[in-house]
Amino acid sequence: MSEILPRVSSPADLHGLSDEQLLALAQEIRDELVSVLSLRPAHFASNLGVVELCLALHLVYDFSKDRLIWDTGHQIYPHKLITGRYETFRTIRTKGGLMGFPNPAESPYDLFVTGHAGCSVSTISGLKAGDDLLGHADRKAVAVIGDGALPSGIVFEALNNIAGMKQDVLVVLNDNKMGICPRTGGLAQHLDQYRLSGLYRGTKKTINQILDQIPLVGEAARHSLEGLRDAAKAYFKDGMLFEELGFRYFGPVDGHDLHGLRKILKDLKDQPGPVLLHVFTNKGHGVQQAADDPVTFHSPPVFEKVGPERRILSMRKGGAKAYTDAVSGAIHKLMAEDPRVAVLTAAMCQGNKLEQVRADYPDRFFDTGICESHAVAFAAGMAKAGAKPIVDIYSTFLQRSFDQIFQELALQNLPVVMTLDRAGLAGPDGPTHHGAFDIPYTRLFPNMTVMAPGDELDVEPMLRFALAHAGPTSVRYPKANLSQLERSNDFQPIELGKAELLEWGEDGCFVAFGTLAADCVAAAKALRDEGIHVGVINARFAKPLDKELILRAVETMPVVVTVEEGTLEGGFGSAVLEAANAAGLDTRNVVRRGLPDRFVEHGERAELLADLGLDARGLAETVRRFREEMTDRSTWDEVAVGS
Amino acid sequence: MSEILPRVSSPADLHGLSDEQLLALAQEIRDELVSVLSLRPAHFASNLGVVELCLALHLVYDFSKDRLIWDTGHQIYPHKLITGRYETFRTIRTKGGLMGFPNPAESPYDLFVTGHAGCSVSTISGLKAGDDLLGHADRKAVAVIGDGALPSGIVFEALNNIAGMKQDVLVVLNDNKMGICPRTGGLAQHLDQYRLSGLYRGTKKTINQILDQIPLVGEAARHSLEGLRDAAKAYFKDGMLFEELGFRYFGPVDGHDLHGLRKILKDLKDQPGPVLLHVFTNKGHGVQQAADDPVTFHSPPVFEKVGPERRILSMRKGGAKAYTDAVSGAIHKLMAEDPRVAVLTAAMCQGNKLEQVRADYPDRFFDTGICESHAVAFAAGMAKAGAKPIVDIYSTFLQRSFDQIFQELALQNLPVVMTLDRAGLAGPDGPTHHGAFDIPYTRLFPNMTVMAPGDELDVEPMLRFALAHAGPTSVRYPKANLSQLERSNDFQPIELGKAELLEWGEDGCFVAFGTLAADCVAAAKALRDEGIHVGVINARFAKPLDKELILRAVETMPVVVTVEEGTLEGGFGSAVLEAANAAGLDTRNVVRRGLPDRFVEHGERAELLADLGLDARGLAETVRRFREEMTDRSTWDEVAVGS
Repeated sequence: MSEILPRVSSPADLHGLSDEQLLALAQEIRDELVSVLSLRPAHFASNLGVVELCLALHLVYDFSKDRLIWDTGHQIYPHKLITGRYETFRTIRTKGGLMGFPNPAESPYDLFVTGHAGCSVSTISGLKAGDDLLGHADRKAVAVIGDGALPSGIVFEALNNIAGMKQDVLVVLNDNKMGICPRTGGLAQHLDQYRLSGLYRGTKKTINQILDQIPLVGEAARHSLEGLRDAAKAYFKDGMLFEELGFRYFGPVDGHDLHGLRKILKDLKDQPGPVLLHVFTNKGHGVQQAADDPVTFHSPPVFEKVGPERRILSMRKGGAKAYTDAVSGAIHKLMAEDPRVAVLTAAMCQGNKLEQVRADYPDRFFDTGICESHAVAFAAGMAKAGAKPIVDIYSTFLQRSFDQIFQELALQNLPVVMTLDRAGLAGPDGPTHHGAFDIPYTRLFPNMTVMAPGDELDVEPMLRFALAHAGPTSVRYPKANLSQLERSNDFQPIELGKAELLEWGEDGCFVAFGTLAADCVAAAKALRDEGIHVGVINARFAKPLDKELILRAVETMPVVVTVEEGTLEGGFGSAVLEAANAAGLDTRNVVRRGLPDRFVEHGERAELLADLGLDARGLAETVRRFREEMTDRSTWDEVAVGS
Repeated sequence: MSEILPRVSSPADLHGLSDEQLLALAQEIRDELVSVLSLRPAHFASNLGVVELCLALHLVYDFSKDRLIWDTGHQIYPHKLITGRYETFRTIRTKGGLMGFPNPAESPYDLFVTGHAGCSVSTISGLKAGDDLLGHADRKAVAVIGDGALPSGIVFEALNNIAGMKQDVLVVLNDNKMGICPRTGGLAQHLDQYRLSGLYRGTKKTINQILDQIPLVGEAARHSLEGLRDAAKAYFKDGMLFEELGFRYFGPVDGHDLHGLRKILKDLKDQPGPVLLHVFTNKGHGVQQAADDPVTFHSPPVFEKVGPERRILSMRKGGAKAYTDAVSGAIHKLMAEDPRVAVLTAAMCQGNKLEQVRADYPDRFFDTGICESHAVAFAAGMAKAGAKPIVDIYSTFLQRSFDQIFQELALQNLPVVMTLDRAGLAGPDGPTHHGAFDIPYTRLFPNMTVMAPGDELDVEPMLRFALAHAGPTSVRYPKANLSQLERSNDFQPIELGKAELLEWGEDGCFVAFGTLAADCVAAAKALRDEGIHVGVINARFAKPLDKELILRAVETMPVVVTVEEGTLEGGFGSAVLEAANAAGLDTRNVVRRGLPDRFVEHGERAELLADLGLDARGLAETVRRFREEMTDRSTWDEVAVGS
């Protein structure tokens, strides 16, 4: 169906196209987005919104030498389609295929992987400083950032620094009035005002005429009048906030008017100093349902049917319940029970499935926007006042709060509960979204209590325990469907530093921190069929560790396999080694399994886990292989170094 | 000498004082500051600057129920003096004495320990939200933040959120035109403009009169005129930036006019919504030399003589060279050799001793202000463009960059060098400033190379290695005087993942990561005198670890003691355990020594290290005790679990 798009193998090919062809190309890009994204869940509405902006930027600049960063990066698809990746676009977000974010490994037109919001302004500033230093001052520098990412603290730090250096940098504010969820905060209200600016736009001339007619009353008044004129000017053209920071502000302009965009970008290209161009776009532009409901269509499930004119006829309904549902459900219940409980999200109301909480407890629901650092420090203040805040943030994004977890939570020992969603492999979003590092980065601080439910049944009691605990706690859980462990005993209540023994076996033991416990149970079952009796411990706590139970396993079992959906560098298994070492135990029977010391690519969580040997099959194989190696060795002492 | 201050045991006692007595009290507080701080290095100029502000706040508010947070917190001394800590003030910053920052353990008037800048606005917002939730809406909320901390991203996040919620919060901007070093960035230039506002302040009335006289030309013009009037109003009273964000701005006012401050605070106390009060203070106010040179007097050495009128007659000259000198000297040299090398600091030009670099290479020196997140992302941009940036930030403050180390450095595998000053125990500044966590928080990311010099001789070659390495690197070093290791062999050049064997001994081995290597050598010497031959390895790399040499030690030595000036939770010793475990080695002979899993108090670094057994004496004792325990045991298997 597409005629022009297949012939665009690089942005240089755009220059031969007429205005009409460019408009047709925009439609072809949207058709391609609908066609491919109907087959798999992916970022949708944001990509529909930037088609014209993407084309205009590539028409005006030459990004084979100029610098372009797409902030957050989930709106990169049109850019990928016109930078040599049309042919492979159908592989997007599949294992081995294109990444759903910019990726320098795919194309020189992608400079940074940018899954975490707000860094584009800093990196474009650094690129400009580097280019200037190395004699490439002619290279232009452009960052495109959404209004959802704008309130993130690092953006302000970067704007402030760029202004101080008076760098030749263009920041394009892609304002679609939306983050992933509706935006919040003073800045959002400020930007909303700009939308009303048409009200007084028509009277601008009149005012200038009035000002010209005012008689000058001496030198003092003239001096002030100039100031007054400046203020009025800034006021009428909006953007005072950015102007005050030291940026020249242009706009707002219509982000779907390709011709107009191209013209203003051309004008701005040679403007010296820091410039901000404010562009209004509509998330979902060109697909009516997506434009009408950009929250649902931010990253929708697959479409079952697509009609003419890119009309979506039906979408697949949601499937099995996930850990996110269990956690948000438990939060809702606990808020009903205790009026002191409050919940915070950082622009992930939908991702955290907190819509019901927001609807039922609006006074105790806080969406900080993409401000994770603030969210944790804010929660610390609430806890100090006696409230019981739960900070509900993805594992990978909570990395932004690392210093606040240190100072505001751990050092003050304040009872804030952190629920870390997407802890482990997040699937098709890939390495920026995998929650691979939270076990070490939470357990390294004193006073922290670090937990993970072994299954669905652990979730609510664990949150209840966390809310009652007199210090900071974290509860990590994966982006996965709910699972229930088979227990040979009754469910053991959650106690500080107590693991749950699911079954005991004389040939070895899995010690699982988190929901891979279910895979351990399955592995144990498979091994049992072979006559190998391996027990399973649901560790529940990485800190404090259940030394009694876990070290008993280390001391008595032929093999102990620690299992975690997180990096092995300083993770749960290392905590076991540390404890065993402190207790003077031999740990040659301990095998640690978890994420390797490399960034794990994107793909379905199940296939990634299988590749890493973290499914039931791989875990059973770990035990088999260890037993074989042991029988191959006549004595412990023959074990070679450095293998 | 003081007559009034000793009788102020709580802020309530201020209310009985006349205006004259209050002014006398201000002088007595300054006298006490000079008197006590002449005896030990401490934060000086900033405390002199807030005496009147502190008194005014406590006069107008009742902080036994109202909420007050002093941002960053090194200006807390006047507050401590009037909240029941006059008697113990002479112990400040000594081990077991008062902390140099707010400390809830000392007084209910201190709500948060606030050594890291910028969190006060978030925590006060959280306190207000908590108080409102729990039925204490009458409690007022005040944060005092300096202009140095203002550009920190979290402040912007918090201002934006407070404005969005329209919270009743007062933010006092204590503007002394200084961070610890002169401030930078667009915001600083913006604030500087306010200082000039007197120029047109006198003509404000005239302009209002002019506006009143303008004839109204129809409804459209009236509508616009109102907008114009608003804009003009905001312009003339300054603070447009804060007004645009949603704060009501008041000021600027003279921060040394106690009477005026008290009056405006009274007026503002019942203002609803977010309010920002802009106060001008002079860092060092009341001590001429400190006011003239607030950088030197931010945290000066002890004064040898103090004359009348708080005149400082002489200061102790700087002593021995420190690791900071060696690193900044090496940076200077490497910048001379390679024009691509640039250096970044986050407002710590003085602390990092980069003044000479700034003077000689102004184009390659970047001070981002207290914007660590931005600094690392900016450096990533520079590296991507081909420059060779060195990010020179204290270990504890680099925690703010954790997510940028993840995404912008490790994930992109960009060659940025991070030099982590104050890695280890920072001494009298205490737990907010100890660099206790960087070994685990840097080593947990793939692609990272994590280094620490064993002594002075390692510093320059290690930086040279880092600059040549094709990926992100970190080099950590303590706040300590330079040391040189005795080497039985020649100095071994720095090679990726290679430790340096200093000496070999058949009875055991110290494996030191960092400058405690010198203490290990001293311990080995002491043990040798007792006939115990223990070797020393200068590990140099925590990642990648020198598996060949270190695991050989683990495999062959009766005892291996890993030594690090950092937390044991996931640190260097854990990396050794992990590698040994992966290699199938028995690690019962490995003893890990480092910082414990609790926050270490303030005190002199040497005394803290001694208390923790991390001096030569303690390290030697570790070996002796291990040997005794081993001889006490008939077999390995008797080792008890859970000890």
